[in-house]
Amino acid sequence: MVMNRKRHFFSASDARTDLALEAHEMHSGQGGVPGVHISEQKMPDATVTRVNISSPQGEEMLGKPQGNYITIEARGLRERNRQLQERIAAIFAEELQRLMPQQDRLRIFVVGLGNWNATPDALGPQVVSNLLITRHLHDDVPTDVQGGLRSVCAIAPGVLGLTGIETGEIIMGIVQQIKPDIVIAVDALAARHVDRIFTTIQISDTGISPGSGVGHKRVGINQQTLSIPVLAVGVPTVVHAVTIASNTVELLVKQLRREEQAFYEIIAEMGEQDQQRLINEVLTPAVGSLMVTPKEIDVYIEDFAKVVAGGMNIAFHPGIDSEQAFSYLN
Amino acid sequence: MVMNRKRHFFSASDARTDLALEAHEMHSGQGGVPGVHISEQKMPDATVTRVNISSPQGEEMLGKPQGNYITIEARGLRERNRQLQERIAAIFAEELQRLMPQQDRLRIFVVGLGNWNATPDALGPQVVSNLLITRHLHDDVPTDVQGGLRSVCAIAPGVLGLTGIETGEIIMGIVQQIKPDIVIAVDALAARHVDRIFTTIQISDTGISPGSGVGHKRVGINQQTLSIPVLAVGVPTVVHAVTIASNTVELLVKQLRREEQAFYEIIAEMGEQDQQRLINEVLTPAVGSLMVTPKEIDVYIEDFAKVVAGGMNIAFHPGIDSEQAFSYLN
Amino acid sequence: MVMNRKRHFFSASDARTDLALEAHEMHSGQGGVPGVHISEQKMPDATVTRVNISSPQGEEMLGKPQGNYITIEARGLRERNRQLQERIAAIFAEELQRLMPQQDRLRIFVVGLGNWNATPDALGPQVVSNLLITRHLHDDVPTDVQGGLRSVCAIAPGVLGLTGIETGEIIMGIVQQIKPDIVIAVDALAARHVDRIFTTIQISDTGISPGSGVGHKRVGINQQTLSIPVLAVGVPTVVHAVTIASNTVELLVKQLRREEQAFYEIIAEMGEQDQQRLINEVLTPAVGSLMVTPKEIDVYIEDFAKVVAGGMNIAFHPGIDSEQAFSYLN
Amino acid sequence: MVMNRKRHFFSASDARTDLALEAHEMHSGQGGVPGVHISEQKMPDATVTRVNISSPQGEEMLGKPQGNYITIEARGLRERNRQLQERIAAIFAEELQRLMPQQDRLRIFVVGLGNWNATPDALGPQVVSNLLITRHLHDDVPTDVQGGLRSVCAIAPGVLGLTGIETGEIIMGIVQQIKPDIVIAVDALAARHVDRIFTTIQISDTGISPGSGVGHKRVGINQQTLSIPVLAVGVPTVVHAVTIASNTVELLVKQLRREEQAFYEIIAEMGEQDQQRLINEVLTPAVGSLMVTPKEIDVYIEDFAKVVAGGMNIAFHPGIDSEQAFSYLN
Repeated sequence: MVMNRKRHFFSASDARTDLALEAHEMHSGQGGVPGVHISEQKMPDATVTRVNISSPQGEEMLGKPQGNYITIEARGLRERNRQLQERIAAIFAEELQRLMPQQDRLRIFVVGLGNWNATPDALGPQVVSNLLITRHLHDDVPTDVQGGLRSVCAIAPGVLGLTGIETGEIIMGIVQQIKPDIVIAVDALAARHVDRIFTTIQISDTGISPGSGVGHKRVGINQQTLSIPVLAVGVPTVVHAVTIASNTVELLVKQLRREEQAFYEIIAEMGEQDQQRLINEVLTPAVGSLMVTPKEIDVYIEDFAKVVAGGMNIAFHPGIDSEQAFSYLN
Repeated sequence: MVMNRKRHFFSASDARTDLALEAHEMHSGQGGVPGVHISEQKMPDATVTRVNISSPQGEEMLGKPQGNYITIEARGLRERNRQLQERIAAIFAEELQRLMPQQDRLRIFVVGLGNWNATPDALGPQVVSNLLITRHLHDDVPTDVQGGLRSVCAIAPGVLGLTGIETGEIIMGIVQQIKPDIVIAVDALAARHVDRIFTTIQISDTGISPGSGVGHKRVGINQQTLSIPVLAVGVPTVVHAVTIASNTVELLVKQLRREEQAFYEIIAEMGEQDQQRLINEVLTPAVGSLMVTPKEIDVYIEDFAKVVAGGMNIAFHPGIDSEQAFSYLN
Repeated sequence: MVMNRKRHFFSASDARTDLALEAHEMHSGQGGVPGVHISEQKMPDATVTRVNISSPQGEEMLGKPQGNYITIEARGLRERNRQLQERIAAIFAEELQRLMPQQDRLRIFVVGLGNWNATPDALGPQVVSNLLITRHLHDDVPTDVQGGLRSVCAIAPGVLGLTGIETGEIIMGIVQQIKPDIVIAVDALAARHVDRIFTTIQISDTGISPGSGVGHKRVGINQQTLSIPVLAVGVPTVVHAVTIASNTVELLVKQLRREEQAFYEIIAEMGEQDQQRLINEVLTPAVGSLMVTPKEIDVYIEDFAKVVAGGMNIAFHPGIDSEQAFSYLN
Repeated sequence: MVMNRKRHFFSASDARTDLALEAHEMHSGQGGVPGVHISEQKMPDATVTRVNISSPQGEEMLGKPQGNYITIEARGLRERNRQLQERIAAIFAEELQRLMPQQDRLRIFVVGLGNWNATPDALGPQVVSNLLITRHLHDDVPTDVQGGLRSVCAIAPGVLGLTGIETGEIIMGIVQQIKPDIVIAVDALAARHVDRIFTTIQISDTGISPGSGVGHKRVGINQQTLSIPVLAVGVPTVVHAVTIASNTVELLVKQLRREEQAFYEIIAEMGEQDQQRLINEVLTPAVGSLMVTPKEIDVYIEDFAKVVAGGMNIAFHPGIDSEQAFSYLN
């Protein structure tokens, strides 16, 4: 069956994307998925897309748990411009607040997933190191100031290979000890298209599923396991190499179907420049001399850690403004 | 009262040492402390000193909880010689094993205290990153190999100022979740004399008391709080500046008492060289151009993290030899 | 012309390999290249291949300057085993010595190309930081010891984007000032196949050509520009993403030519597993969950920096043995 | 001779300060030094002091070459407030411009002295990594934009122990190659008083003398050696431990002279609190739990690197404003 064959090139397992937006795009040509609602909002600096998955069928087709997924895309983030970073941080803060419980006193526990020592996976720990941490000061603070500063604590527990302990176990132990109202997990993600790397922030209210993220967690960090709301914040920092090759084949086939010609002829007739163009279509727009992670990944990770932490500082603490939110960044 | 006055210059609060050995030295001139036993063993590369505190009086005078304190001193460790480092690691492994429960199956949880981002306090996290971690592999390993590889897991939770959570709370939560048989806490220490910096390893079976270590923990990590045995491993990486000044005054007074002269006269008559010699007596033997932490602290921290982690790998896993123990180091 | 069409898929510009061995492989199906000689030596731990390019035609076809290229391949290097690393370092040292002038007194200047802050490009600086540096001590050393320790100095000047100065200009200025006998430039390389990443060391006596290496130098660092012999040592740390896609297409075409069928039929008939196998053929053997650079690139860079620096310490200083050579590593 | 004896306590060699301001303070009680002029300007956020040494006698007494020394002191810099940092950077930029040649086209070469891997000595390299580098882009830039962006290049060559080459030799070689109009050398300094650590920036038009700075350069980097103007920018990051002890003794003696009593009596009568106060007088105001370098040195180094680099970006490029100057910081 053609439909069936076609799915081979678009299956979620090939795609290896952690973005609900991309998972949805892969099915968008088929007239929409039942129980999946999507809306887009264009702003001067960024595009915000909201994907809501509300049916088991949508959950299965997109390979993502039911819930809300907000994606903020801003190509400009690659330009390393601090003013723009602050504007995007403010947009991110607003979207994050939408998914947070609407209450003044909220004890927030941020978990920075990933590995300090593997650059593409270091986003979570770097965000944690840039947060304004207040839980330990909270009892000393006058009540009127407490209104402006919520109780925030955070940890970057490290990855299974380095600790020998599932991150889920560590978080569960600490949550039972300190009893926060909400967990916000930050992680590096894998995207399907290179133009999503270091341009995109995803927020969801589904927590972290086992096996997602760059570091492949095996135990979920979500409301089922922790019994409190869990938000997940992620930034695509890599495309899997297998996705690149998969995209290449897929594009060839699309081209072929359109042309209805024997492939060999097409390839044979294509000049070097045509092929280069074809491949470039797969890989463009790329970040510099793209290596699936950009070579300059270290500075991009640092930039995004600041945008995410700056936005969190704004969203968490009603009493501090955007300028102050960035004053705490390392 | 002279005795009383004298105590001013020797009080434990001035001294700010985390080493039981140094705390004992401060009282050694007074004919020993009741309930404190000390023995020394000289080896070619190192001197091992064992201090046992077994009375409340000893506890109070030395300012250290009752228990065993083993100190390994090796000046050669500053020379950055790998062979010597491996020999010291083997001695450390042997002493560590003395204080560990003598049982084959022992699930070990190592806690690296301190702060990745403050070099003098980064020892604990760096040790953790050099350990051979096995807990997550353990179920997959054949039983006969399991005999040679104990279950080891580890975490470097970060410091209160960065997490907002007392390290004791974090460890308690994780211990209740994963139920290890023993906790081994690794920390950077403050010494009283500069010649102990980066030459010394202390092991104790008392755990970590509140307020000790370079990072000043406020909650204890010990058998009382965790209900399992807790060993503490520490390496002096700093002398507090106040200790330097205190030592200076103390030495002047000693000098004075000996000479029985008016101080001004002495000072006035002392030439520049004499004064320099006096000050050098306080500060020598120094590490390079000493700045209380040596300028080269970054490399010393790295070296000691390898010695401690290498020794732990030997002590934890009966099935691997010294050569292998160092193969896992970063 | 078929020959011409075929070249499209095999052109040096597509391949983007810095390895002469790979450049040669791309032409090996065509019955050899005139003026290019290749020989292979299999050892228990490694395979050493020697490529000699001695004709302008070979130079043009392989896209590499005339000279000698020695490649040491050792898959085991990914296993992070220190003993194996030391054995490979000894092999590397021997091959490096073959290309060095055979004279006792040799003042060596090592240049670590690349960028501290971009992990895939950090090999050169990390090698420099692990070398045994002697030039500044040399005048103080007795003559008989000088025989065992050659004069070695080194610099990691940083990349054009960070300094604003061509690396070639910096090196030229320093060479004219300190007048060494030989320059050895160390750099991270791009390979064509993923199985060459972090398994391979290349040594050549051609120096560094403009545009080669991960960081794309624009000015050559070679005998023409510096008037002294220049060796280049390189380790592939990345495959360009464009190469991955290019390899994918190429493999499809090869498959097609063999089968002599219409491509669409093949693709249409291929099940998902067949396609996956095809793509895996492009990408396997991969390092972990391959992202063109492995996620664990930080630790591999560190490992290789030690192998290369350890081997250089052996090759440079006849008076120190293998064990000592590694004692100086950070 | 009393005068002579007194000098013992105030000799430049004891003081080990790289700040002309402190060197001057040590002589200020003596009614001024001939040929040394000093003026102070108090601002809301900072105090700017200008010391001019114009006589050989002043040069000898202060232990600093003849020339201008501008010191910007701002206690607030320890509070890690970004807005304040930007205001201080603007003040620094203005003072730096005073000492720079007043010409539009000025090709500037910045040298970051010190050692990436020794935190107290890492200021210079970190400043370099935060500069807006333009030299390599300059030929591509339209002439009208060139007016706003001067040609800036930079290097952090590393220290003698790591390179085997005197920093002076490296700089000389590069200067002869690229022929800049001015060299600006940035270095970490040693102060005499702990309250100058991480509160102070010194600018001078004398370049770097042999033996100054935390890393003890042996060859000067100044107009005599390079034949072009050389400015030096320094930030005190340490007090030598010997200075701490020296200060302690000095203070005791001062106390003694005032009281005109026998020292032993004073000491004997002093309670513990009095002594503590005395010592605290030596060490206060201290940064946190002072260890001569503050434990949090890593973050302070990062902050100051940004202040210095941000100020340089403003001073170097007339076409960019303060906000933009900080956009380029890592």
